Amino acid sequence: MIDDSSRLKNFLDEFARLKGEKILVHGGGKRASEISLKMGLQPKLVNGRRITDAASLEVVQMVYGGLINKNIVARLQANGCPALGLSGADADLIRAEKRPPRDIDYGFAGDIRRTNGQRIKQLLACGLTPVFCALTHDGQGQMLNTNADTIASAVAAELAGDYSVRLVYCFEKAGVLRDLKDEHTLISVITQRDYRNLCRQGIIASGMLPKLDTAFAAAGRGVKEVLIIRDNQLGLVNKDRPAGTKIVMEENGNDDTE
Amino acid sequence: MIDDSSRLKNFLDEFARLKGEKILVHGGGKRASEISLKMGLQPKLVNGRRITDAASLEVVQMVYGGLINKNIVARLQANGCPALGLSGADADLIRAEKRPPRDIDYGFAGDIRRTNGQRIKQLLACGLTPVFCALTHDGQGQMLNTNADTIASAVAAELAGDYSVRLVYCFEKAGVLRDLKDEHTLISVITQRDYRNLCRQGIIASGMLPKLDTAFAAAGRGVKEVLIIRDNQLGLVNKDRPAGTKIVMEENGNDDTE
Repeated sequence: MIDDSSRLKNFLDEFARLKGEKILVHGGGKRASEISLKMGLQPKLVNGRRITDAASLEVVQMVYGGLINKNIVARLQANGCPALGLSGADADLIRAEKRPPRDIDYGFAGDIRRTNGQRIKQLLACGLTPVFCALTHDGQGQMLNTNADTIASAVAAELAGDYSVRLVYCFEKAGVLRDLKDEHTLISVITQRDYRNLCRQGIIASGMLPKLDTAFAAAGRGVKEVLIIRDNQLGLVNKDRPAGTKIVMEENGNDDTE
Repeated sequence: MIDDSSRLKNFLDEFARLKGEKILVHGGGKRASEISLKMGLQPKLVNGRRITDAASLEVVQMVYGGLINKNIVARLQANGCPALGLSGADADLIRAEKRPPRDIDYGFAGDIRRTNGQRIKQLLACGLTPVFCALTHDGQGQMLNTNADTIASAVAAELAGDYSVRLVYCFEKAGVLRDLKDEHTLISVITQRDYRNLCRQGIIASGMLPKLDTAFAAAGRGVKEVLIIRDNQLGLVNKDRPAGTKIVMEENGNDDTE
């Protein structure tokens, strides 16, 4: 939705209206690729993940941390939401480690090592709304590129000990679909066992795997509710109407996947 | 110094060592011009000030808010300094108004209307070190480009009621010089009257005028000490050894300019 300004505006209007303490985490991949190309750099992706060489890191730092993050913050402020734009380096909120090169050298890609729950809680206690972009640091002066879904999951899990946390993934689909081309095949509840089965059957689209992995990781670390919804359904999640796909650790009676 | 990584590193090492509450404000003009050119945009400057059309605003937002700000924050964190990168939009810290076009239309250039002293004090009270880039917002969702010297002066003046504030401008020269080519012509103390006289005589380089105007504005609004120094002399300002040019409102015995 980040590439569609009216859709983004609607989403942010809805986000600003949500009650209670809240945190936004965003990426911005397509925009980074566009700016890369404008600068004469061909973006490199393997299995949907960006190969972040030094020049690409500069681009994602600029696009995520400068362009998109500040536009989102300014828009939320206009809606009366006290947004504070952040990377993982700011206030040392998220430390990561440069991914060691194995089969593939992802370059300046960061795997999260530590989230600073105390600082995040301090910012929330100040009445601020943290807006994280998909950047972390290694604690030794190096910025790193970290997937936004992974950051959202890690931050949600970090706060689960002190808050009743709901983690909501917003994207362009209605949720997890059995058939990507048919929105009527929405899976409304998905358990870990379902997930394993669906993966085995090759039913879940490969692009959904990292999102679902981080979703289950958060659910497994005490996040009370994990949802995957379409970006225009954010207004529904505080109501008792169902939206999107609900991730649950245990089997339950609502299971409609088997 | 921002364009010279080892010089920037030395400066940030020194900044991290400074005792007490502190705030860093940075620009990054040359880098923005380089990135503009890479993207096929010719930077436009009039009287040393950038004409910020929509495309240029995207560039300065990316370079100031994303690239330079996060690199500085990551480097300060590596030095144990709890840096928090900020634009004026974050936490609604600095609101500005788009400069009305008169002889020249500066585009998305922002003139500061309000600094949020309460929020800045709150962040300082959290033990954080704010790192501002040269960006503000209009409160209605629009980011704006605002000169870093102007931001530094406004923030210093805002805090002068609650803190004993020292405002230090760091740049590539030893201070205000009578002859730009001769560092031995440093003016060690400059009063408002001196400033008027030097301007009248055409002695002060035109590039220094905005810096000095903002320096005197801060001194006039209660900032206790205002200095203009070379970036490698930051370590001296907490000691009793003189460095650079001191800005003073009243005439005094140390006046060496007449």
